[in-house]
Amino acid sequence: MIIYSLDLAGTFAFALSGAYTAAEKGYDIIGIIVVGFVTAMGGGIIRDLLMNAYPITWLADNTYFWLVVLAAAMIFVLSKWMLKMKNTLFAIDSVGLAVFTLLGVQKALDHHLNPIEAVIMGMMSGVFGGLCRDVITRKTPFIFTEELYASVCIVGGGIYMVLLKLGVHELSRDILVILVVLLIRVLAVRYHITLPKVKGVIEQPGV
Amino acid sequence: MIIYSLDLAGTFAFALSGAYTAAEKGYDIIGIIVVGFVTAMGGGIIRDLLMNAYPITWLADNTYFWLVVLAAAMIFVLSKWMLKMKNTLFAIDSVGLAVFTLLGVQKALDHHLNPIEAVIMGMMSGVFGGLCRDVITRKTPFIFTEELYASVCIVGGGIYMVLLKLGVHELSRDILVILVVLLIRVLAVRYHITLPKVKGVIEQPGV
Amino acid sequence: MIIYSLDLAGTFAFALSGAYTAAEKGYDIIGIIVVGFVTAMGGGIIRDLLMNAYPITWLADNTYFWLVVLAAAMIFVLSKWMLKMKNTLFAIDSVGLAVFTLLGVQKALDHHLNPIEAVIMGMMSGVFGGLCRDVITRKTPFIFTEELYASVCIVGGGIYMVLLKLGVHELSRDILVILVVLLIRVLAVRYHITLPKVKGVIEQPGV
Repeated sequence: MIIYSLDLAGTFAFALSGAYTAAEKGYDIIGIIVVGFVTAMGGGIIRDLLMNAYPITWLADNTYFWLVVLAAAMIFVLSKWMLKMKNTLFAIDSVGLAVFTLLGVQKALDHHLNPIEAVIMGMMSGVFGGLCRDVITRKTPFIFTEELYASVCIVGGGIYMVLLKLGVHELSRDILVILVVLLIRVLAVRYHITLPKVKGVIEQPGV
Repeated sequence: MIIYSLDLAGTFAFALSGAYTAAEKGYDIIGIIVVGFVTAMGGGIIRDLLMNAYPITWLADNTYFWLVVLAAAMIFVLSKWMLKMKNTLFAIDSVGLAVFTLLGVQKALDHHLNPIEAVIMGMMSGVFGGLCRDVITRKTPFIFTEELYASVCIVGGGIYMVLLKLGVHELSRDILVILVVLLIRVLAVRYHITLPKVKGVIEQPGV
Repeated sequence: MIIYSLDLAGTFAFALSGAYTAAEKGYDIIGIIVVGFVTAMGGGIIRDLLMNAYPITWLADNTYFWLVVLAAAMIFVLSKWMLKMKNTLFAIDSVGLAVFTLLGVQKALDHHLNPIEAVIMGMMSGVFGGLCRDVITRKTPFIFTEELYASVCIVGGGIYMVLLKLGVHELSRDILVILVVLLIRVLAVRYHITLPKVKGVIEQPGV
């Protein structure tokens, strides 16, 4: 129940981020809804397709769809006001990242994937929606260039597997994973922690 | 039978639009075929994957594939002549949009999706092929920035659901949906009707 | 067994090419792994999704995943040294293209697709991973603009079908297909053989 609420919050935050990017790119209201939808649902859809897990989440529960429409409407009506809430949005987005990772790992284990595959699926759930958003709107995928993002999902997934092995109680385990992911993500953004890149081969901007 | 013919016409028109875009981008003949294929088949493929509907349409009937090859060959040989037929091409493309929407909604209902999901699937059938084309060839997706496009599919899908509820006869219902979609699309392009965008957050071009 | 080794070599080469492109674009180490993964696995994943073939290859055998991680690590640590090995990398990449094509055609036939569909699936196995790489990293897909690439897969797939019809022994057939694909690809790059494009409609660069 708590997880479901957090999942909805995460979906809403991801939809907002997609809708906002689409608005910036001059897309119309339908484009804003579609990109919001792809951002919020893309990670879960790709995960479910790869695992042959049907029905796809959003077809089982239309709440997700209406949340996306609500997020797009809010961006449409309140975009300037939303801009001032960047900290709040960032917090919700981080919750979303944590919950999506957790749910991705759990669903993969439910479908009998092995631990490594489950961690990969958790990461995909968390970041592939944002990757789809950046591909459609033709932005450099910030999830691979800015502060820790995909790596946070991998750490979260890894901790989940360790806690599972240790036999930690379900609720404590889930909460712990979410808190760790949140904490690392917040610290990474606060102190601009990035992963190393390969120097000497990076193209000049504009190329 | 009529629907099947219109479906083939729509496939052909979508393949032409994909092939033409690829030619503009300097792709070779295989690239032109592949982008034509993705444009014509992409919407249906994504719809089928999401609904777990197998076999994917074009694997059940190779006519679609040969139509794509024919469209690519025509673009390759007759590109300058095709340019002069823009009005004809636009008309066929609009028929394609209408038929793809109709078939998408119907297939979704056949797979027991609810009305809202069916309308979404109809829209995806109509526009996601074009979205794939624009993503691969790196163009701003015109379906979200220019005259009514995705929205026309949604209206068409909505009318389909209403007529279905009202118990209108199958053939009349299908024809009515196609005519309404065609009419709105033609009016939208004729009078440059666009959906509203979010002012004040749109990035400058070139950014 | 030989085929499996060549498949691993091809996976490794494709992962290297994805990882290198990601490094050039300034992605961090996770981004390098993800793009390497998508490049190496994307073609096979799309093929499997379209044929409803589960489990997806890399979920059946984690060796592929670790090869991708190894390739990313090598790019990360040895990028400058790797640059000097361009000829070796090109050779491995060509082997990958040949083996992926062969395996794609075979898997399609195993799933009762007809010969034309099997050749298409072989081509998708070979080139759609590279297409995903170019879409994510926003490069012009070289597979559709430079020397023969996708076309080589189609020729290879066609030869496979002819040899199959002629009743040629399995091992001879497979080796012959791989050698022909390799030979055409090497000659194409050596002599800069490209497929024709459509003159007169190609946009100016920068548009």
